[in-house]
Amino acid sequence: MMPSIGVCYYPEHWAEETWPRDARRMVDTGITHVRIGEFAWSRIEPRPGVFDWDWLDRAIDVLASAGLKIVLGTPSATPPRWMLDRFPDMLAVDAAGAPRKFGSRRHYCHAHDGYRDAAADMCRVLGERYGRDARIAAWQIDNEYGCHDTVLSYSDAARHAFRDWLARKYQSPEALNRAWGNVFWSMEYADWTDVDLPNLTVTQPNPAHELDYRRFVSDMVAQWNARQVAALRPLTDAPLLHNYMGRVLEFDHFDVGADLDIASWDSYPIGFLSDRLEAAPAHKARFMRQGDPDFQAFHHDLYRAVGKGRWWVMEQQPGPVNWAPSNPAPAPGMVRLWAIEAVAHGAEVVSYFRWRQAPFAQEQLHAGLMYPDDTPAPGLTEAKRAADDLAALPAQLTPSARVALIFDYQSDWAWKTLPQGAGFDYFDLAFSAYRALRRAGMSIDILPLETARDYGGYDLIVAPGLMTLNAAEMQALTASGATLLMGPRSNLQTPDFQIPNPPGPAIPGLDLQIMQVESYPQGYAPHVRDDRHIGIWQEHGRGTAEVALRRRDGIPILYRAGKIHYLAAWPDDALWGDIVQDLTGAPSLLPPGLRIRDTESHRFVINYDLDPVDWDGHTVPGCDALILPRS
Amino acid sequence: MMPSIGVCYYPEHWAEETWPRDARRMVDTGITHVRIGEFAWSRIEPRPGVFDWDWLDRAIDVLASAGLKIVLGTPSATPPRWMLDRFPDMLAVDAAGAPRKFGSRRHYCHAHDGYRDAAADMCRVLGERYGRDARIAAWQIDNEYGCHDTVLSYSDAARHAFRDWLARKYQSPEALNRAWGNVFWSMEYADWTDVDLPNLTVTQPNPAHELDYRRFVSDMVAQWNARQVAALRPLTDAPLLHNYMGRVLEFDHFDVGADLDIASWDSYPIGFLSDRLEAAPAHKARFMRQGDPDFQAFHHDLYRAVGKGRWWVMEQQPGPVNWAPSNPAPAPGMVRLWAIEAVAHGAEVVSYFRWRQAPFAQEQLHAGLMYPDDTPAPGLTEAKRAADDLAALPAQLTPSARVALIFDYQSDWAWKTLPQGAGFDYFDLAFSAYRALRRAGMSIDILPLETARDYGGYDLIVAPGLMTLNAAEMQALTASGATLLMGPRSNLQTPDFQIPNPPGPAIPGLDLQIMQVESYPQGYAPHVRDDRHIGIWQEHGRGTAEVALRRRDGIPILYRAGKIHYLAAWPDDALWGDIVQDLTGAPSLLPPGLRIRDTESHRFVINYDLDPVDWDGHTVPGCDALILPRS
Amino acid sequence: MMPSIGVCYYPEHWAEETWPRDARRMVDTGITHVRIGEFAWSRIEPRPGVFDWDWLDRAIDVLASAGLKIVLGTPSATPPRWMLDRFPDMLAVDAAGAPRKFGSRRHYCHAHDGYRDAAADMCRVLGERYGRDARIAAWQIDNEYGCHDTVLSYSDAARHAFRDWLARKYQSPEALNRAWGNVFWSMEYADWTDVDLPNLTVTQPNPAHELDYRRFVSDMVAQWNARQVAALRPLTDAPLLHNYMGRVLEFDHFDVGADLDIASWDSYPIGFLSDRLEAAPAHKARFMRQGDPDFQAFHHDLYRAVGKGRWWVMEQQPGPVNWAPSNPAPAPGMVRLWAIEAVAHGAEVVSYFRWRQAPFAQEQLHAGLMYPDDTPAPGLTEAKRAADDLAALPAQLTPSARVALIFDYQSDWAWKTLPQGAGFDYFDLAFSAYRALRRAGMSIDILPLETARDYGGYDLIVAPGLMTLNAAEMQALTASGATLLMGPRSNLQTPDFQIPNPPGPAIPGLDLQIMQVESYPQGYAPHVRDDRHIGIWQEHGRGTAEVALRRRDGIPILYRAGKIHYLAAWPDDALWGDIVQDLTGAPSLLPPGLRIRDTESHRFVINYDLDPVDWDGHTVPGCDALILPRS
Repeated sequence: MMPSIGVCYYPEHWAEETWPRDARRMVDTGITHVRIGEFAWSRIEPRPGVFDWDWLDRAIDVLASAGLKIVLGTPSATPPRWMLDRFPDMLAVDAAGAPRKFGSRRHYCHAHDGYRDAAADMCRVLGERYGRDARIAAWQIDNEYGCHDTVLSYSDAARHAFRDWLARKYQSPEALNRAWGNVFWSMEYADWTDVDLPNLTVTQPNPAHELDYRRFVSDMVAQWNARQVAALRPLTDAPLLHNYMGRVLEFDHFDVGADLDIASWDSYPIGFLSDRLEAAPAHKARFMRQGDPDFQAFHHDLYRAVGKGRWWVMEQQPGPVNWAPSNPAPAPGMVRLWAIEAVAHGAEVVSYFRWRQAPFAQEQLHAGLMYPDDTPAPGLTEAKRAADDLAALPAQLTPSARVALIFDYQSDWAWKTLPQGAGFDYFDLAFSAYRALRRAGMSIDILPLETARDYGGYDLIVAPGLMTLNAAEMQALTASGATLLMGPRSNLQTPDFQIPNPPGPAIPGLDLQIMQVESYPQGYAPHVRDDRHIGIWQEHGRGTAEVALRRRDGIPILYRAGKIHYLAAWPDDALWGDIVQDLTGAPSLLPPGLRIRDTESHRFVINYDLDPVDWDGHTVPGCDALILPRS
Repeated sequence: MMPSIGVCYYPEHWAEETWPRDARRMVDTGITHVRIGEFAWSRIEPRPGVFDWDWLDRAIDVLASAGLKIVLGTPSATPPRWMLDRFPDMLAVDAAGAPRKFGSRRHYCHAHDGYRDAAADMCRVLGERYGRDARIAAWQIDNEYGCHDTVLSYSDAARHAFRDWLARKYQSPEALNRAWGNVFWSMEYADWTDVDLPNLTVTQPNPAHELDYRRFVSDMVAQWNARQVAALRPLTDAPLLHNYMGRVLEFDHFDVGADLDIASWDSYPIGFLSDRLEAAPAHKARFMRQGDPDFQAFHHDLYRAVGKGRWWVMEQQPGPVNWAPSNPAPAPGMVRLWAIEAVAHGAEVVSYFRWRQAPFAQEQLHAGLMYPDDTPAPGLTEAKRAADDLAALPAQLTPSARVALIFDYQSDWAWKTLPQGAGFDYFDLAFSAYRALRRAGMSIDILPLETARDYGGYDLIVAPGLMTLNAAEMQALTASGATLLMGPRSNLQTPDFQIPNPPGPAIPGLDLQIMQVESYPQGYAPHVRDDRHIGIWQEHGRGTAEVALRRRDGIPILYRAGKIHYLAAWPDDALWGDIVQDLTGAPSLLPPGLRIRDTESHRFVINYDLDPVDWDGHTVPGCDALILPRS
Repeated sequence: MMPSIGVCYYPEHWAEETWPRDARRMVDTGITHVRIGEFAWSRIEPRPGVFDWDWLDRAIDVLASAGLKIVLGTPSATPPRWMLDRFPDMLAVDAAGAPRKFGSRRHYCHAHDGYRDAAADMCRVLGERYGRDARIAAWQIDNEYGCHDTVLSYSDAARHAFRDWLARKYQSPEALNRAWGNVFWSMEYADWTDVDLPNLTVTQPNPAHELDYRRFVSDMVAQWNARQVAALRPLTDAPLLHNYMGRVLEFDHFDVGADLDIASWDSYPIGFLSDRLEAAPAHKARFMRQGDPDFQAFHHDLYRAVGKGRWWVMEQQPGPVNWAPSNPAPAPGMVRLWAIEAVAHGAEVVSYFRWRQAPFAQEQLHAGLMYPDDTPAPGLTEAKRAADDLAALPAQLTPSARVALIFDYQSDWAWKTLPQGAGFDYFDLAFSAYRALRRAGMSIDILPLETARDYGGYDLIVAPGLMTLNAAEMQALTASGATLLMGPRSNLQTPDFQIPNPPGPAIPGLDLQIMQVESYPQGYAPHVRDDRHIGIWQEHGRGTAEVALRRRDGIPILYRAGKIHYLAAWPDDALWGDIVQDLTGAPSLLPPGLRIRDTESHRFVINYDLDPVDWDGHTVPGCDALILPRS
């Protein structure tokens, strides 16, 4: 499939006479896909049971007649006001106990059966009307699960569903008490109705309680999505997808993705740099107008895995956004480059958000490809260039990687539940490993942690911070034959969130038990060598495993047995560089803003810096890419 | 009217035998006005409907007999405990949904009809008793509207009143939906009862929703005040006033002021420096014991406008206060100098708060002119010197200004509602312009934004950040004939809070449309020239307007057409200095602590620094002023 | 009594077959005392009224048979889930109004009569079963009062009890109104039911209201404890104790201690350094693995007073904890040294927490003497060394001090209620004085403020920050004959929390009235001499008292009359050093990590630094102590 350019469009926001002109201009820009409908519930069903299809029929007609393929969204992220009259208790409740009000979006609790059914009903009527319509190229279910912190809810609906979830998992309160260690502070339950959600406790709740709650809310999202899929699937042959958001970790995307055909994500590189990335101020200043050089790639690789190979960028930043602490404009070239980069990672469609900047409501200062007065914004030209560039690419670009990074949502929840030190975050650790591998020039597959998976075929598997593994998962990882790097904090807890006996990591072939862990204050930074240090985490091991690397004070930080490695500390970027060079044999690190992504046939050399960079006999212009055939 | 010294006095706090001695000493100090009664509801009406006039009659007798003019306060800022038994739902509710408790003051929601009527009834009975009493020189309505964050309330009373307010404004839910753009996220309402207050939404509510709510709560304050005025006005010939607080922006002071005869404000220069001013630490250290050199003047000029020319300082800091993060004592001379400065700006009365420091309750560590043991505090001597100085002034001091600064509360709400960048604040922008003009030696009138106003007669009008204007307002500003500086962020939204088409600022005669806005992180600071930079905001324009100033990278920051200027970025203080010098022709800037204020006959040269400053052939002692006849 | 080593043990957490092995190993380690039972309510009384004694009987058998003395805890800190069915309103309520949920511990309001009775009933049944059992060496009542911020509760139970408490104290609402100065803002009450708890007020509540509330909640803790003591005391001859926590100030430990026989505290030096100590980053880095050199000693001396001479460390940190912002491991030697130091201050028992690290629940990453897999952790060896060292000590070590520091919980509440400046904290002041005395080599007794106490026998009494004193307390302090240092902020308020007339400090023989106080921003630091400065507080006095020390600008900071001194500012550490050297005649200050503690017969020289320190002809190894006979 040839990679394509798309756009997000809201016919309900504009006078109908503008639709044909918009459609024509989209086509002229090289756009092939247009997403519509995902926030339009109040226009599709203005009153309960009263549907208005006319405008949507006409919008589809106009767009499809111009030659555009339609991606139709189900509108469950924006239940209309009257839905609250049916289900006053459908609102999510925050950790302080306050119900979240109507007036923006995503104001529902995933555990509420009534609204879940209503959303599925909406899928059914949409499917009945458009399911076999060949103009619908794909369906988007809901919008940005988890955005605005909407996974964790402390509603009555969630409380009741959590008790049922626990009852199914543990079968008896006694079993739950044992698994959680509730004897600890007389926290034992006699009945399922004794169990509450883990907010507002006097001090930290039992971490097993919190971790199960986090697993539960993730399941609620997956079930919510599955319920819509079940309603829609029998009515259509078009693929189903969801548009995930960057760095949303509160639910397991692999679980949701299992029920869908394609993964997509919403890529806002400059907004994310400002809002969702911990980095040194100098780094943020350097990439203020470009975005972080690894953040998009990480998510591209992640969602390629979530989509089992098929993935899109559903929303691509087209100019300044409105929601980050600071909102500068992209450097010239970046709006195009982001699309090229996505395609290098295998994206089928890169869809800009949005066609025309809205003149009203929450996102009126969020750029579009067009200004509100219907004149072209800078993004339009770049989108056109991107479309032209994609048309010139070989038809088949198959991503190719010799390195795998395991990314595991459960581990994030485990770390959040039991941090053991301020600033200790699983995503940051995984991302620091990813960045180090990329600095060494690697192309990477991100993979889930799965019992039945064959991890073979890679030269190197990096799996940091997998706090709990079951034996089959450990077996799958170590059986791959690849060089394997685990740690820190890997397999140190059982799935019930207890310390195992004997202690972890229990890696076959590596005689090592982690007996004690330490967290350090920021800035302590024990020295390793030259300007290499470790950060806020150190584990202390026991066993006969070979020590491959020590701190200057002699404390081991890297253990080894054959191709199996265990990292017992959190390296800084420089030390990560050494470790990764050692494991990959990379002769050097790439310049700070340059990255490489390989497909089977081509090498993309991508320059996130403003200035040109010389590399391997080539000059890569600033904010641009070279596409080289692989020899 | 000769400017006078006043004082705030609480006879109910002291044994009756001290009253005559206090009154005598006030007169000996040169004090002519004494404010009483504004917190005394529980003593005036100890039980519902049971009034105790005796003590108040006697207090008025004692004070007036000594020769003092009485300013009588209505006590509605402190409803007694029994009022809650009548109106349990009168309490304001905070943004998290918690009703605010009895036990301090201002614990009422302005939208509560029942308490509003009760407060008006109290005005009526006070007016019936003292309204024609010639000893009452003025009435103060309530006390410090908005202090302690008491304008925004999320009570049931507010919810119901907000629905009514919207129904009156929009006439139909459909019209509201259109005006707000509620189609955006299916936020459309079918009925007024669908509308809630905009707190506790999942993410940002519709900015039009929030802005209307902010307009509504401001109206509630104005209506609250008007209701008391309506009860009192027929019963008295004495002027009515209110004492506003510094940097309170949540209601439109001009609206409240329209119903009153005099504006007054409560001036706590050192408390404000510590608590309410964003400034560099070195600046705060330099003026720690004096207050910021422009903060008082800004409010003097503002309240002169709110009072339509008549204004007082109702509470003047007399020594250390108790409520700021740090509470140092004023430098010697400042307690007097603040009074002189107020008079230079046209104050009729400067009234110190308070006569004697209270030995009990919330403000026991707030200084008075007297210590709690009835010995003189340092402020007393300074108040006496101020009174002597005022007596030596010419009887008529008419403020005189060639420059006007437009200050608009609606713009503050608009910026707060749609900030588009961290740290972006309308007051800070307006104050930075005011400071720059003052550094250039200007005397300034602060003016509201009014449709019908004639802005003629000024050399220069500075109107930064007026986010929404209607056409008549724009016409009034541009028709003045003065040099006009607008921007940044001026007229970029319609009154309905939408982006206009064609885009703003739509200044007659200036062909310029702002198409895109950018916010930058703190410290980015694009360079202009020398050590001049811009800060966190940049707009990008389209049109044929002449570019008067560019950043070093070529991006325009100042546009011009004849006398009309539009500033497309936020200058730092140094760049503000250049711009203001260019617009005013000022040959140089004043020293950091020195300021000038002109009346028609005299020039006041005021030195906020501790050390003497040489200026124009004069030496101005530290913490002192020169009063020079104007040639 | 020979000082002993103990340990905390949770038989209910472990398989019964491990108990005998554990007991043997404890004895082999030199442990003599074992605390059990304090969190085991759900195992002792699994259902209401159904008791399971078997396991506890057997556990006591096993431990006692091995030769261990049992400390038995009453389990009221962990009421089981079914208790909430009996008393749904027993939960504490936070300041925002949210009830705190079941799921951790300490989830009760001390003012709740029903649960208070239930806890006393539990004491009774425990006492009936084990009260005369000679194997029980002591009883611990509840666990860590005030931990997790559990003293201040805003529940209905607290509201009702507060009204009763006020009614008993003031007898009439009129008397309360007068005492609090409620006339100030019409805050007067007509009836006890008018009075609410002082949370959620619009601005600061009346400080007299808040201070009485703080006295009330402290009384609730004391009454809570007394109720358990009353139930248990008639049934046992063993001593009763409680284990207090470090830097918990919300209740008066002396009041609780008055009803008990022994005080104990839970000493976590590294956790406290990270979590509960304001100190410069360099200081925290230097002592990261050792703890602050004075923090433990301060609490040792404090709890020796609370215990009227008898005191223990009930929980001693054995390795990394899990609850601080960072949790590094102790430096080798410290786990032993902390025990030695405690004994130097007079501890009878030092009990490590806990025997074996729990593999589950909240504290699974909190070290024990044993690892979860039942292998020895580093702490075990150190505990054994400590036991051996204690065995070699002289049988009788009587603490000896020539200096007393007065520490007063009421003063902390007064300062918190009326801070008058950011960062102004009573504990910090008292601790800065304590540290300065220790740097001068002093051994110190910490004493409560008591009317009837004879403070004679000391060379020097330091009593900073005693905000309110009654005349008898002042008389007791000044009658001691010792050199006395009071101030800053001493006796400046009456017990009713009013400013006295004449003003304080009203020290007999010292003609000084503090008329005005100033708080300064951090960093202002007025200069005194050399590198000595004062910090954020300055008082201004009146009177004929001799000025012993002035700031460079002439403002007095130390007054004197004979042996009586009043400090009118907050000195920095260097200035504290000068003052203390002057008062004590100490020729020099000790090195930063070295401290001295005297008993009647021996001098302990304790080195908190990692490296050896030379002192007085000796070399003290790092993390170690010298024990020298006193000449």
